[in-house]
Amino acid sequence: MPGHVPRYLEKLTPVSEAIRIIKESVKPVSEVESIPVWSAIGRVLAKDVVAEHDFPPKPRSAYDGYAVRASDTPGKLRVVGEATIGRIEHGLRVDPGTAVYVSTGAYLPDGADTVVPEEAVRREGEYIVIDREFKAGKNLDPIGSYVRKGQLLLPKGYVLSMFDVVALLDVAVTEVEVYRKVRVGVIATGTELFEPSNPREAEKRILRGEVAETTAKLIEYAISRYAPWASVVWRVMLPDDIDTISWYLTRQGTSVDMIILTGGTGPSNVDPFYQLAEALEAKVLFRGLFVKGGRPTSAMILNNGPLVIALSGHPISAFHGFVRLVYHVLKHIGNVKRSTEPPLTALAKLASPVKSKRPQPIKVKLRVVNGVLEATPLPPERQLSSVTVSNVEADGIAILREAKVYEAGEWVPVHMFREPEGYEG
Amino acid sequence: MPGHVPRYLEKLTPVSEAIRIIKESVKPVSEVESIPVWSAIGRVLAKDVVAEHDFPPKPRSAYDGYAVRASDTPGKLRVVGEATIGRIEHGLRVDPGTAVYVSTGAYLPDGADTVVPEEAVRREGEYIVIDREFKAGKNLDPIGSYVRKGQLLLPKGYVLSMFDVVALLDVAVTEVEVYRKVRVGVIATGTELFEPSNPREAEKRILRGEVAETTAKLIEYAISRYAPWASVVWRVMLPDDIDTISWYLTRQGTSVDMIILTGGTGPSNVDPFYQLAEALEAKVLFRGLFVKGGRPTSAMILNNGPLVIALSGHPISAFHGFVRLVYHVLKHIGNVKRSTEPPLTALAKLASPVKSKRPQPIKVKLRVVNGVLEATPLPPERQLSSVTVSNVEADGIAILREAKVYEAGEWVPVHMFREPEGYEG
Repeated sequence: MPGHVPRYLEKLTPVSEAIRIIKESVKPVSEVESIPVWSAIGRVLAKDVVAEHDFPPKPRSAYDGYAVRASDTPGKLRVVGEATIGRIEHGLRVDPGTAVYVSTGAYLPDGADTVVPEEAVRREGEYIVIDREFKAGKNLDPIGSYVRKGQLLLPKGYVLSMFDVVALLDVAVTEVEVYRKVRVGVIATGTELFEPSNPREAEKRILRGEVAETTAKLIEYAISRYAPWASVVWRVMLPDDIDTISWYLTRQGTSVDMIILTGGTGPSNVDPFYQLAEALEAKVLFRGLFVKGGRPTSAMILNNGPLVIALSGHPISAFHGFVRLVYHVLKHIGNVKRSTEPPLTALAKLASPVKSKRPQPIKVKLRVVNGVLEATPLPPERQLSSVTVSNVEADGIAILREAKVYEAGEWVPVHMFREPEGYEG
Repeated sequence: MPGHVPRYLEKLTPVSEAIRIIKESVKPVSEVESIPVWSAIGRVLAKDVVAEHDFPPKPRSAYDGYAVRASDTPGKLRVVGEATIGRIEHGLRVDPGTAVYVSTGAYLPDGADTVVPEEAVRREGEYIVIDREFKAGKNLDPIGSYVRKGQLLLPKGYVLSMFDVVALLDVAVTEVEVYRKVRVGVIATGTELFEPSNPREAEKRILRGEVAETTAKLIEYAISRYAPWASVVWRVMLPDDIDTISWYLTRQGTSVDMIILTGGTGPSNVDPFYQLAEALEAKVLFRGLFVKGGRPTSAMILNNGPLVIALSGHPISAFHGFVRLVYHVLKHIGNVKRSTEPPLTALAKLASPVKSKRPQPIKVKLRVVNGVLEATPLPPERQLSSVTVSNVEADGIAILREAKVYEAGEWVPVHMFREPEGYEG
């Protein structure tokens, strides 16, 4: 029961300042490994990727047609064989007066210097008739026309996308050097929490006032989807008990680079965050963010190594903490200069004005109007953090980065979790 | 070797027409199952989700403070206990002249009808002093204030997002009825293909002209990320051999709702798509799309049930086929009215004009300029389908839905695979 003077959120730190403090205090991972390109989706390049070969290494046909000597056109040529992609008959070559059928992408047989497309010839038995002249180098991709040996393909610090993998395999880059994954532990704190497993039982417990744990799961989901270079190596649920949480952090802290605590960060007679820091002899980086929705967000560094970021126990506020802070911290620890698809998937035009006293997330409806994405905020009473159920009325979350009045028509970044109305694929 | 008259893409079908034809010919899945809400992310609701209870079922405190009787305020009250979220001491009630400490979210003990926030009281030993009047119903969330029993929460046909799961668990909806997943098989066809496993060996083979299979993998990736209500139950690689492909489709066709073929759809002396349809006694729905990038896209229905969609073997063209056609077909078969985050994640303003003779995908650079997402097309020579490696220069793919000249400043939907330049989280 209370009785002490609260010592809580005396000074709120702006988000950009919080990120700066963490960047100064936490070193990025340095271990690297070479892995096959096809296993590297979502990983961070530890070294520039450069082309290892001129590609194509031989001229390649750009059409289905006939590889011939330009000096033989126009003319009647004998077809002596066939070269398809990845396959040339051994010893096959184009001598004067002959032609070889080639499919798109096939390497030209020796001797040939041009390609006559299929539709430009008349076939007569084993002969083809070409009516006009074809210059050397026509209808083919010359050596090195896709990439030159040594050419920079992707810079260090880029996160590899599926499309990059496709591209690199296309020019015979099959292995890349990447940083090891950032290891994250997640602890949901809250004596009222339970991990639901049986729907009927869960329903009863929620009606009784217990809380099904979802905030930490939401954060794990956000990490796996938007920070694929990190992986949640454990996620647990602990009671609001400083000794228990300290014990866990002491035992398991060294297994990860970063720990995310959700919940247990709110006001109380004695500030649990400072209590925890004291129990662990940890260095507090900041306590409280200048935001609405995630105000109790805080950070400390444990003396056994890892960074601890404490997020709100409320899902939307914690998600706000993820988007504004954790995502950027994960980029820093992971050495990311440029990521793949970020959590703020789109920019939308506000349909109505909103007053934002502090940077904050707002729930919005999304629709496409004349090709433009428009975000309409839910009414204020549905924005309240207690009314989590209003998520179902929203299509996404807009992030108001500044403390100001946003006018209708201003652009804001949004996290989209539902297809906008009027979306056409 | 060639010699016949090609019978290839005689009539190109517009995309919207192709979708309509498929919708008319293919029935959505009808089997439903009840599953826990927390397992239902990405699944399609088979029934409206309505609130099963007024929620909260009892008044809930909206602050950390004291539950009291309004008629006792102002006044000095004895604190007789504590109610935290999910926990009320057995038999605890608020009788005249008493108060109970409540934390945010806790149910009010019987007898109390208002909450006095912690900061509005003066504590004196086991007593609190309240200086002013608090009306009944203040600082609490009344019964049914989040949702009313029977209230529609999410309509049938919506895909459940992580945020919906959070919302539903908040009001004790723990189970939902969903359609079974759409089952998809993927076949990469191409005698030149191989599935890379060893980087050194793969490099040699690619230099020799063989092709590492990536198109079918890209499609599987797109399905898992953007159509989570479907699942790829098998993916295989087969040679360009009608008999082998027919055999496979005959043996494995019944295990899935839909099969995607990649490659083997291009021009040839005898149209392999029609050959395949003939061998399988399948009904051809259309052969060839009116697009640039995925023109050979076609569809047939096998006599043992499943729909077959043939996509280009080229990764970007196949992806175009996914975005424009397959995604919508998967929505149809899966009974989806409204999906979660779609593959065209953003709308962007074209930075320069582009001429589009047929609907097509173009590779673009993305950056945020004055809060607006801007898409700059790569130069024409880097758009060529043969130059897959130019993916690394792009940040995303813009979809030009119409055959027309797009002016600078027009809005186009984009699939973003790299964080735009100037992106702020």
